Amino acid sequence: MAKALLLICDGLGDRPIADLGGKTPLEVAAKPNLDRLATEGECGIMDPIAPGVRAGSDTSHLAILGYDPYTYYTGRGPFEAAGIGMDVKEGDVAFRCNFTTVDDQMVVLDRRAGRITTGTDQLAEAVNGMVIDGVEVIFKESVAHRGALILRAKGLGSEITDTDPHHEDAKVLECQPIDPNDAASAKTAKVVNEFVKRSYEILKQHPVNVERAAEGLRPANVILPRGAGIGPKLRTFEEEHSLKATCVAETGLINGVARYVGMTIVEVPGATGGTDSNLINMAKVIVEQLQSADFVLCNVKGADVGGHDGSPDIKLSMVAKLDEMMGYLLENLPKDTFMVLTADHSTPCSLKDHSGDPVPIVFWGDGVRTDSCRHFDERSVTIGGVNRIRGIDVMKILTQLMNVAEKFGA
Amino acid sequence: MAKALLLICDGLGDRPIADLGGKTPLEVAAKPNLDRLATEGECGIMDPIAPGVRAGSDTSHLAILGYDPYTYYTGRGPFEAAGIGMDVKEGDVAFRCNFTTVDDQMVVLDRRAGRITTGTDQLAEAVNGMVIDGVEVIFKESVAHRGALILRAKGLGSEITDTDPHHEDAKVLECQPIDPNDAASAKTAKVVNEFVKRSYEILKQHPVNVERAAEGLRPANVILPRGAGIGPKLRTFEEEHSLKATCVAETGLINGVARYVGMTIVEVPGATGGTDSNLINMAKVIVEQLQSADFVLCNVKGADVGGHDGSPDIKLSMVAKLDEMMGYLLENLPKDTFMVLTADHSTPCSLKDHSGDPVPIVFWGDGVRTDSCRHFDERSVTIGGVNRIRGIDVMKILTQLMNVAEKFGA
Repeated sequence: MAKALLLICDGLGDRPIADLGGKTPLEVAAKPNLDRLATEGECGIMDPIAPGVRAGSDTSHLAILGYDPYTYYTGRGPFEAAGIGMDVKEGDVAFRCNFTTVDDQMVVLDRRAGRITTGTDQLAEAVNGMVIDGVEVIFKESVAHRGALILRAKGLGSEITDTDPHHEDAKVLECQPIDPNDAASAKTAKVVNEFVKRSYEILKQHPVNVERAAEGLRPANVILPRGAGIGPKLRTFEEEHSLKATCVAETGLINGVARYVGMTIVEVPGATGGTDSNLINMAKVIVEQLQSADFVLCNVKGADVGGHDGSPDIKLSMVAKLDEMMGYLLENLPKDTFMVLTADHSTPCSLKDHSGDPVPIVFWGDGVRTDSCRHFDERSVTIGGVNRIRGIDVMKILTQLMNVAEKFGA
Repeated sequence: MAKALLLICDGLGDRPIADLGGKTPLEVAAKPNLDRLATEGECGIMDPIAPGVRAGSDTSHLAILGYDPYTYYTGRGPFEAAGIGMDVKEGDVAFRCNFTTVDDQMVVLDRRAGRITTGTDQLAEAVNGMVIDGVEVIFKESVAHRGALILRAKGLGSEITDTDPHHEDAKVLECQPIDPNDAASAKTAKVVNEFVKRSYEILKQHPVNVERAAEGLRPANVILPRGAGIGPKLRTFEEEHSLKATCVAETGLINGVARYVGMTIVEVPGATGGTDSNLINMAKVIVEQLQSADFVLCNVKGADVGGHDGSPDIKLSMVAKLDEMMGYLLENLPKDTFMVLTADHSTPCSLKDHSGDPVPIVFWGDGVRTDSCRHFDERSVTIGGVNRIRGIDVMKILTQLMNVAEKFGA
């Protein structure tokens, strides 16, 4: 059977930059291997969600993997929680959380608890496993001051307000249901408020914080949940597309989406999510995984970091690294492997955030209707045969090329 | 008033073929008349259903005629039955059927009853018209071992399993509702099982089968229904588009779709559905019909046969015949006739089945925004002004060109 690699370069798309002579980083970079893919493949532009919609990485990946985010994306919480290895179930209400420093009036002194880096595992253990009003509370630390919370019980809602005031010197907010008549969300809000209160009671005297105080560091003495979402019911990727899939990614958010749809998650040594990431190691793991998996989703994060930092230089160096990675892949991928090369959204250096501009996409492999496009960049691909598609179309196009798609009708 | 011809070349789209120098049959064929249409018209690519979706001929024609198949396509049965002239009504449950040979333990010996060619009209008559549990049973033979069944009563469901085990030496399957709590479908399943049983009792001793046995032929001693679908409620084509329409097609499936939406069906002498079909006769009938009809749907089957056979040669010869047909049409169509030339799906020779690749489309007629595209083939049209559209868009574009479309808003 045919195999496939879907390579998503996070935030790679950009806008013309005056300092680059009115070109984008992709347009000025030397990238012979990415251009070879464009030359040998069929090119076009893709709107991750729909034209002009500013996609997040989570909503974009859902769409590209074949799950309409307007149906399935309920908030960032479930995918964040899944991304750090928590087992989110349908109906769970999940949150992203910060370890935060508050005073005894619950006024926020430091949203990130002095950017705490150690001891959060012990703090997490101290609050994990409690039961509030019959609701199971599961908490796990993530990197630095971050963590995720799952509330598990029947009949919880997720239409609630955040507790995090999002700036310092403001009081922790009371969580409330957005619609006062929504009893399911009111129940969740009540549990959240109780969880915040108990986290303070437990953490303020915790040895980790006593020690931090002794060292003159901010205590991580409360946990503030935000970004509530209810665990959606998703068919697994294998049920949806008949492909056994592995995810090779650098960030919890992407791993979370992948884990949620049942992909195998593989960690790569040296894959940091930064510009120093070892992409050749990632390529090696992809090649290895394709010995047994039918499909690999790979997300490389670095270009997005450059965009958020407003740095064309970082983007340029990431394009060079991606090109080197593509060189390795073109040499070493199993025969009969199809490739899709694209981005999950544009992160223009001028904007330092995700924009709603479309991204370039190439379909590469046997039977593809090659076109006259010779370069992989935002504007060259617009002459390609793919024209303009949406993220939700990608897996349909790929699986029909791989000849594993069902026919609709006779 | 303007008139229009929608000419659908079944399965015409293809993929690059190594033996044709990496080109498609359409790309290598000489086709001056099809290219003239592309030159004088506005070109683009079309996804019959949506990008990447592998369309059937029935679902594709529904979409192109303006009926969303995700809403209206309930299964193959209703359109198969309509295609052989049966009057399928809203709420009927219709099936495709095979005359089959079974032993007295209902084990399938030959799914096609020795590819029976004669006498099925008498066998059909013997089972037609019975009433089971208050459900009216209508059965009609089609070509060879095929037939169609309609169950008519209020409150029947169509979410049921097939009785045909789809291979020999297996026992006839019991029809069951997919959801055991679906009472409407459970009722249908019960009637189907009784129909299969009675068909065996009636047919095993039928004179046609006695005679077949005497000649050493397999008896057609049971009827196995499959592909259940409930007759959808469809507005007629005339209600939908304000156009009096005629269908000139070669296959039951397309005639079935056309009849279902109330088109007049015209049979053409010499139109065989094969590569020997007389396309000039079809063109003559089209011209004749456009004297009275506003709109003609024409489907020419041959190219699809070439694709399913994996034969670029058959496709090439069909392109030549289609070009000759187009020559006749360009000479003889009434003035003020608009034309849409397209395919219902790609049937790549390399795949021998329908693919999800888009197909070329041309809109031709007065007022069209002509473009720089000069050739009617899969890749040339991608530079055209139409860009990439979907089947469901076609009638909207055509009727506004014809100036018979309603304005939405003020």
